[in-house]
Parts: sequence; C-alpha cells; structure tokens
Amino acid sequence: MEEKVQTLTEKCSKTILSVHDAMDILNGRWKITIIGALFLGKMRFTDLLREINGISGKMLSRELKDLEINQLVTRTILNTQPIGVEYELTEYGRTLENVLKALSAWGTDHRKRITGK
Amino acid sequence: MEEKVQTLTEKCSKTILSVHDAMDILNGRWKITIIGALFLGKMRFTDLLREINGISGKMLSRELKDLEINQLVTRTILNTQPIGVEYELTEYGRTLENVLKALSAWGTDHRKRITGK
Repeated sequence: MEEKVQTLTEKCSKTILSVHDAMDILNGRWKITIIGALFLGKMRFTDLLREINGISGKMLSRELKDLEINQLVTRTILNTQPIGVEYELTEYGRTLENVLKALSAWGTDHRKRITGK
Repeated sequence: MEEKVQTLTEKCSKTILSVHDAMDILNGRWKITIIGALFLGKMRFTDLLREINGISGKMLSRELKDLEINQLVTRTILNTQPIGVEYELTEYGRTLENVLKALSAWGTDHRKRITGK
C-alpha cells in the first residue's frame, strides 16, 4: 500500500492555522491598545477615547464592536445622566494575558536588539 | 508641586509598543507559515516553495528577505549543481517559539469556542 507523503506544512498546518486565528483577533492598529487599557479595569467609552492617543470616536466604536462580537469585551449601558457606556474585558478576554505577555516579552527583546536600548 | 497625571495608555504604553513590535515581525500572510516550516529543520528554497501551498516564488523570496533582515533566518548558498540556497532559523529566530506556542494555544481554544470543534 502506498503511503501518502505528508508535506511539512500539512504536519504543522493546525498550529499555523491557530496562530493565524489568534493574530486575526489582535490585528488592526488599535485592538491591542484597547485590550491593554481594559486590562487595567473597566472603562467608559469617553475615558477610552481620552486615554488612547489618536483614536477617533468612530474607530474606537468599530474596534470595540469587533471585540464584543469576539466575546472579548462586554458593553454595559449605565443609568447615568447623561447615559454612559462602560466596557470591560470578559473572563475570556482575560485569557489573552499569556499571549500578550509572550508577545510583549519578545517585542521588548527585539527592540533592544535592533535599537540597542 | 503639581503631579503630572499619567494616562492609562502611558502607563502601559511600553507593553503595547512591544506587543506591536512583535506583531509587526510576524504579520503578513506567509511569515508564520515559513517560520513554522523552518522550525522543523533547514530547508532549500525549492523545498519551501513546494511545501507551502499557494505561495509564489516572488512572494517567498520577499518574505524570506524580510525574515533575514530581521535576523530570524539565515541564507546559505550551497555549492551544488545546480546551485541551491538553504534557509535556516537562527538561534534568535528560535526564540519565537514561546510566542508562537502562546498564540497557537489561544488560537486553538478560540476556534473551539467559535466553531465548537
């Protein structure tokens, strides 16, 4: 019986696929910044807008919506005057901690290596 | 003396910056696949071209050049007939292992959560 020759990328294709899945969730200019800010605690939309330098309201709204769809962030309407909207990382969102730690540690070493500081 | 109020993103801006640094290195459709293949051992250009489904020679060449510039991959010309070119992860390239493991583990869980398998 002829044995099917498996290509290297077939062998590790599941791993590669899952790495791409994770990267897709984190991609875009702002998602990591928003998740990073929310790791420090829940925040109102207006706070996030103030804290994140350079983001527009429209962009923040869109990125938060994406994160909500992926169940990483919850959105709560506050019964305040004027009405406030609060965002918080879900328990699931918090599972990104190890991923961000690994990326951050490597990124820090890489920057040192490239810039010497 | 007035104390400067530090924004949240300033507090964690170094972490966010370093995460973005790492993501930038890994971004693009093919880099993770190429690195993944090279984790299994050194490979010739023609082998990589055959193993990585759908990549063009031009694209493979460009992505390998990027990885070489970032000191993740070495390129060795082999004294064979016809001349071959071999690529290998550097020791530094191998330091990406933890990053890829963390991304892969999270990506696998995320896929299970979204697709139920």
